[in-house]
Amino acid sequence: MAEENIIYVGKKPTMNYVLAIVTQFNNNVEQITIKARGKAISKAVDIAEITRRKFLQEIKYDSISLDTEVLHGERGDSNVSSIEIKLKR
Amino acid sequence: MAEENIIYVGKKPTMNYVLAIVTQFNNNVEQITIKARGKAISKAVDIAEITRRKFLQEIKYDSISLDTEVLHGERGDSNVSSIEIKLKR
Repeated sequence: MAEENIIYVGKKPTMNYVLAIVTQFNNNVEQITIKARGKAISKAVDIAEITRRKFLQEIKYDSISLDTEVLHGERGDSNVSSIEIKLKR
Repeated sequence: MAEENIIYVGKKPTMNYVLAIVTQFNNNVEQITIKARGKAISKAVDIAEITRRKFLQEIKYDSISLDTEVLHGERGDSNVSSIEIKLKR
């Protein structure tokens, strides 16, 4: 399956992302990746845990990885941590 | 090794935790677990990434796991997400 299903976590409410993920799994998607940076990392973990515990108990963590990304801003470069959570049916 | 080396991430500055971890690894500890809940999860990821990238490049992620903990409060129970990051030499 070459299809990429990536959810980028931003400023929307947690449940918006949860429902987007639940909808995709209900449409027979096999794997979804949740990506977040900086302070949104905590929200990404909430989204993954709520999806698994309240909605789709059969979904498992395929992998969880941490990384650092370099942001190029007006005041120079800055580092921001990131997380990638792969959910799999 | 039965010894448990656990760092609980709270309200202190990120670098306090980083330096505590670096000090322990320099004292020949083989493995350290970083634990955080709720909004401190983002800080835990920062701590792990800064430790690995700026100070101890030889340290690897042994495992990263997500969970949900139940907090018993005056207004009833509430759920909070948690992360456990195991670092290994």
